Amino acid sequence: MAITISVLKEATGENRVALSPDVVRKLVKNDYQVLIEQGAGERSFYRDAVYTDAGAKVVDRSEAITQATVIATIAQPDDAAIDQMKAGQTLIGLLAPLTDTEFVKKLAAKKINALAFELLPRTVSRAQTMDVLSSQASVAGYKVGLMAADHFSRYFPMMITAAGTAKPAKVLVLGTGVAGLQAIGTAKRLGAMVSGYDIRPASRGEVESLGATFLTTSVSATGEGGYARQLTEEETAQQQAELEGFIAQNNVIITTAQVPGRRPPLLVTQKSVDEAKTGTLFMDLAASDLGGNVAGSKPGETVTTPNGAEIVGAGDMASQLPASASDMYAKNVQAVLNDLNKDGKLVFDIDDEVVGELLATYDGEIISNRLRSVMELP
Amino acid sequence: MAITISVLKEATGENRVALSPDVVRKLVKNDYQVLIEQGAGERSFYRDAVYTDAGAKVVDRSEAITQATVIATIAQPDDAAIDQMKAGQTLIGLLAPLTDTEFVKKLAAKKINALAFELLPRTVSRAQTMDVLSSQASVAGYKVGLMAADHFSRYFPMMITAAGTAKPAKVLVLGTGVAGLQAIGTAKRLGAMVSGYDIRPASRGEVESLGATFLTTSVSATGEGGYARQLTEEETAQQQAELEGFIAQNNVIITTAQVPGRRPPLLVTQKSVDEAKTGTLFMDLAASDLGGNVAGSKPGETVTTPNGAEIVGAGDMASQLPASASDMYAKNVQAVLNDLNKDGKLVFDIDDEVVGELLATYDGEIISNRLRSVMELP
Repeated sequence: MAITISVLKEATGENRVALSPDVVRKLVKNDYQVLIEQGAGERSFYRDAVYTDAGAKVVDRSEAITQATVIATIAQPDDAAIDQMKAGQTLIGLLAPLTDTEFVKKLAAKKINALAFELLPRTVSRAQTMDVLSSQASVAGYKVGLMAADHFSRYFPMMITAAGTAKPAKVLVLGTGVAGLQAIGTAKRLGAMVSGYDIRPASRGEVESLGATFLTTSVSATGEGGYARQLTEEETAQQQAELEGFIAQNNVIITTAQVPGRRPPLLVTQKSVDEAKTGTLFMDLAASDLGGNVAGSKPGETVTTPNGAEIVGAGDMASQLPASASDMYAKNVQAVLNDLNKDGKLVFDIDDEVVGELLATYDGEIISNRLRSVMELP
Repeated sequence: MAITISVLKEATGENRVALSPDVVRKLVKNDYQVLIEQGAGERSFYRDAVYTDAGAKVVDRSEAITQATVIATIAQPDDAAIDQMKAGQTLIGLLAPLTDTEFVKKLAAKKINALAFELLPRTVSRAQTMDVLSSQASVAGYKVGLMAADHFSRYFPMMITAAGTAKPAKVLVLGTGVAGLQAIGTAKRLGAMVSGYDIRPASRGEVESLGATFLTTSVSATGEGGYARQLTEEETAQQQAELEGFIAQNNVIITTAQVPGRRPPLLVTQKSVDEAKTGTLFMDLAASDLGGNVAGSKPGETVTTPNGAEIVGAGDMASQLPASASDMYAKNVQAVLNDLNKDGKLVFDIDDEVVGELLATYDGEIISNRLRSVMELP
């Protein structure tokens, strides 16, 4: 019997879809059956007919859920969908296991096998084609650079015209992980004068290779999995004070410092925000309900300071470039399926260094060591 | 007595301001007095205090109007402002004399001297520093390219990632005047595959020098003042049919073909719009109440076709990059003032090839030959 992959329509506000027509075509060629919930791709500009052309069957939500071997989603499906699932079915997506352990317990209780992209061991090279956090951060970084340029009241490039010359915008990117580097790349493409700051000295080379200036503070810290470690209070204060100087010299400040499951570090203090000149633009990619990198940022909102600076809470950028983001996401899902598929059957090797970590739950058990440690399980 | 230049606050919806703080500083240094209506620069991120620092006096609207030698605006001031003006005062701005001749008659009746940027003889080299249509088209072209990228659901650049490669967007720019060339430049900067079409064969070199592909149809036409001449019905049909083929091959179509005072030519037919694939983006810079370049475009609105293509009526792009647009506009105003200023007095030489055309009205007379011809005056 063929392995059936079902794609559900995401909740309102999420524009991405877990499989693209291109990936559907490849899966069908490899003997998977693909079911697409009606309208699932609509907000990514993939209509039902395109999926049908690619070999998928377009069905209602109930059929997509009940007939699936694997259900692929972007975010957690709603309770009704989970209730309809049966033991032995598999769910793959950004399931937020580290911050929503109740959801994990529910899946385990129902004996649903859950593959959560947040748990992927990102430093294992075999896992890189499955790395949703990286692919979506890359999209988000491009998009936030573009949005910054579109939101800003001035040219990014230097412009030489008959009426005179316009100076290039000065753009500072705080946090130069995948998203930060893409934001730097986009701002550079547009001709801005760009500098990048990161607490990890190792990122100097990456920033400079994009033609941007690398900035450091006297605080430096490299942590696990490529993320920066958490700073002490004293280090944080020192970092913030030094950053204030950099921030004041720039017109556009893009912040991208995120650590999974923790409050994002505050990089732009209230003092920097208060002192920012009229027209200064802060784009906070880390804006979330937990807080962001910029004092006073609010996810999904633009806040204008009394001084006339703007803080854009740019929290869901990947969803704002939905077709490309979905394409990349779908390729990551396909890579996981390829990895699990042994002679036409999905095999979950819980001892494998990638699969054993990606698995939040399997057959009623919590599998991922990282998740077990967060849940304080032995 | 010093020449007093007053700047009025524009109506809601217009973000630009006629003088920037930088230009104010230069005018004050050259013995002009500058009055700024309270809040005039607010939407361009120029606050009153910045003008005060530059040497201007911030005043109420009534004082700005009554004390002015010259009133500089972006668009036509409201009736109340005109009513408050006195004979002998000068008004400079985008006064729409060619399409609103009633307004011209009113100014003439009041003996207000009116300098209308639409009337500038753009091919005279001395006039280039005063060319507001060009400076604002340049801003608009940059901005529409940026907005297209921000609006599009996919990457503009080719992206090579661990998960796979994303193809670059295919962008077609119809009309390669000042705005079209800037739109091409912006899309190229962002890494898209860009082609440019113009009915004037002379623009091939300009398009190709930006690294874009030049497209031609079998219809070609060069008209006066650098604009294309109006086509016959037969030529139009032939052009449209040939363009349909180009349009269908692209993901993003930016249209920029405008002719002052005439309905913009329809370049994208209803057939092209109907057949456009889901996710295709049309950005119509020529969208206006007179119609646009794209069938069904509406100024200031985004229309989604039944097929899932989008038509953005991008009619006021310069106003959407307000600080840079105002900077350029202000430099154009300054160039006119420099030209008129003879030993500390504004002298209107109606026989001068530039001033005599820029002047819509002077001392109760309609001056510009172009305007007289449109108004059917001898």
